[in-house]
Amino acid sequence: MSLAKVLDLIDADIDNALTRLLGLLRVKSISTDPAFAADCDLAADWLVDDLTTLGFTASKRKTPGHPMVVGHAKGPGKHLMFYGHYDVQPVDPLKLWDNPPFEPEIQDTPNGRVIRGRGSADDKGQLMTFVEACRAWKAIHGTLPVKVSLFFEGEEESGSPSLIPFMRENAEELKADIALICDTGMFDPRTPGITTMLRGLLAEELVITGPDKDLHSGMFGGAAINPIRVLSRIIAGLHDETGRITLPGFYDGVPELSDEIRSQWQNLAFDHERFLGDVGLSVPAGEQDRTPLEMIWSRPTCEVNGISGGYEGDGFKTVLPSKAMAKISFRLVGTQDPDLIHQSFVAYVNSMLPADCKADFPLGHGSKASQMSVGNPIFEAARKALSDEWPNPAAYIGCGGSIPIAGLFKEILGMDALLIGFGREDDQIHSPNEKYDVESFHKGIRSWARILAALA
Amino acid sequence: MSLAKVLDLIDADIDNALTRLLGLLRVKSISTDPAFAADCDLAADWLVDDLTTLGFTASKRKTPGHPMVVGHAKGPGKHLMFYGHYDVQPVDPLKLWDNPPFEPEIQDTPNGRVIRGRGSADDKGQLMTFVEACRAWKAIHGTLPVKVSLFFEGEEESGSPSLIPFMRENAEELKADIALICDTGMFDPRTPGITTMLRGLLAEELVITGPDKDLHSGMFGGAAINPIRVLSRIIAGLHDETGRITLPGFYDGVPELSDEIRSQWQNLAFDHERFLGDVGLSVPAGEQDRTPLEMIWSRPTCEVNGISGGYEGDGFKTVLPSKAMAKISFRLVGTQDPDLIHQSFVAYVNSMLPADCKADFPLGHGSKASQMSVGNPIFEAARKALSDEWPNPAAYIGCGGSIPIAGLFKEILGMDALLIGFGREDDQIHSPNEKYDVESFHKGIRSWARILAALA
Repeated sequence: MSLAKVLDLIDADIDNALTRLLGLLRVKSISTDPAFAADCDLAADWLVDDLTTLGFTASKRKTPGHPMVVGHAKGPGKHLMFYGHYDVQPVDPLKLWDNPPFEPEIQDTPNGRVIRGRGSADDKGQLMTFVEACRAWKAIHGTLPVKVSLFFEGEEESGSPSLIPFMRENAEELKADIALICDTGMFDPRTPGITTMLRGLLAEELVITGPDKDLHSGMFGGAAINPIRVLSRIIAGLHDETGRITLPGFYDGVPELSDEIRSQWQNLAFDHERFLGDVGLSVPAGEQDRTPLEMIWSRPTCEVNGISGGYEGDGFKTVLPSKAMAKISFRLVGTQDPDLIHQSFVAYVNSMLPADCKADFPLGHGSKASQMSVGNPIFEAARKALSDEWPNPAAYIGCGGSIPIAGLFKEILGMDALLIGFGREDDQIHSPNEKYDVESFHKGIRSWARILAALA
Repeated sequence: MSLAKVLDLIDADIDNALTRLLGLLRVKSISTDPAFAADCDLAADWLVDDLTTLGFTASKRKTPGHPMVVGHAKGPGKHLMFYGHYDVQPVDPLKLWDNPPFEPEIQDTPNGRVIRGRGSADDKGQLMTFVEACRAWKAIHGTLPVKVSLFFEGEEESGSPSLIPFMRENAEELKADIALICDTGMFDPRTPGITTMLRGLLAEELVITGPDKDLHSGMFGGAAINPIRVLSRIIAGLHDETGRITLPGFYDGVPELSDEIRSQWQNLAFDHERFLGDVGLSVPAGEQDRTPLEMIWSRPTCEVNGISGGYEGDGFKTVLPSKAMAKISFRLVGTQDPDLIHQSFVAYVNSMLPADCKADFPLGHGSKASQMSVGNPIFEAARKALSDEWPNPAAYIGCGGSIPIAGLFKEILGMDALLIGFGREDDQIHSPNEKYDVESFHKGIRSWARILAALA
């Protein structure tokens, strides 16, 4: 079957593909905020409708949370299962967006045309690269070169609470020869990557309670314990002077890089200065003896993602608050165990807690890091197909983010995952003004069309 | 002129006085939030109308912020100037209020009848005790036993930005023999107090900026500086292990208590256990070598009144925020200088700031502590009048809060201030469910009626 005709059709149809994507981006499918539950449902319906148009047998599947979308299309040979997520991150602070986050636009910028809007890169734009590749194959050949299943989740940005039970209950249907996931980035705009190392994530919320009500700081300050001060001391103690995390046992299971991988990474033209310079920084802030690339691909971290307590509005209020809260996340590597680290975190917090204070931990769930078996010949076939599309050959790379699904596919369905994505460092995912380059979208579609041919 | 008839009228008219107070409490005069500017104006109008009804020459005076209210009534002998504030604290968190904060009610509680609502104690209920005392004197005698001026401010809860210029411009009009201020508490429900030591206040807002935008903590965590972590380290370093504040020079000008005052305070039946127990605590949290009464009346403090940064909503968002903010206040005693302490705070913060981080200090204004000259015979006359009204004799006491106006009256108008208030520890001022006891209101009015007679 001709790949060239498929690629030509993708080029000819790119404006229509962009129009379809903008339609999906308009749906406010913020999974973490219950106020947007109906929008998540709408995004699932949108996908079922589109897949049905393409000739997939597609359906929306209920879960206790947001629905799953599953679709199947027949084809010869190998069975591929593509995963993506239709939910998006919250949009606050809204005032930092130049355009409303759910009124997406194609914009011309000094670096080329971009698709601007929440979810453009994470993950609606990326998942549609695969759907559009299938559309082009179907249009030219009436069928796909392999058997394809699609699996779209709506809770990826809120900890995927329904995922494991759903995969267990539908294991027969979802199992394939390999999983494809499009939720990662290129190494750089000319060099595609296949992500083979993914960090795990432990998400914690820590709530410190002192007095049983908010107090006047003039009447009680000094004499009554202040939960913001307690929380600050706890956070300050999580790292030592050299940037190492202090929790006992935290580094158990953290491997050192092999010399081979270390030298591969040293050969990649990673520009540390530009990486930080792009976000207004100049000095690496983590462990003193590690390069930024090591830190974000292969080292565990502890970050504070949010903090609140007391009076946060305009002006001043002399309150001594009853409660203070922080959201804290740990990125995990190697065989670090999220359950053991949760226990170590709880024990540390309790050891720092003055009499009269109480600590609550409403979250505390996590996922392990994962590492792909690149010996599987599918990896090398996909790497060659990608290298045909882009200026530089594709590289096996690490990823700072956490995509727990990759580990779960291995654990529950026994499949490796091929993590191929077309995001760029400056996409501002999870931030205001998120974008996805039109080039990422266009060449992403072409890349998948090539990979479908290569795995046939 | 008969005091007894005045007191009888106060008793007979108490229900009407309560109805009038509820009217004033319904006005949402939150000064710190610009959204309530019109309500502040409304509260000023309400007071001008009420004073005019009483036969005062009263007017609303423009300022760059919220208006002042000034009124005068003729009378023989001494000239007293009464100060109060009609603005109130913000009401959040709103969900912790049992009734809406601006729909005040008289409620029966196990400890007696209370007036429930924002401002009932701080300061509308307190300021109306004096207005009602004047009303009763006027009704019985057609005049007051002394010359009285009234001065009501609408920016006390937001740092009083217009106060000093207004006092300087109207010094001739406002100057009197002594100032009366009703914005403090009783020593206990049976023991009235004249507050002669007031702490000063330095209010700081600290904004730490790291990256120039919010980042994905998976992509940048570890390598990029996190402003919440920086802020937490700064806050954690403000106190040492013994609860002492670490800023260089902070304790310059902090006097030790005289043996006389220390022994007076030891004789007061201050129940440390109950003071903390009432707010759900049991262990004093401040400087290890000080009693709670010393800590709140005579020792300086540093408290964090609010903190925010990153994602604070439901669920989890793996953001590495660009900014984090804390509101920090210092209570000052003796001759501590707020300007020098601001400079010391700025220098400390800068010394803790990693490369790449920026600190902003949008507030940084303050007032010194003040100490009254109790040798002035007016103090002893007022103390006797108060002692006639209440079960226990009145005491000269300290106050943890800051009432900068008392120092300003001395500095700008050359007057001492007689700080007499009827608030109770459990009034929950600045907190949800603020209340003022009907007994405080009723006997407060009677107390002022007696003081007017005593100072005649």
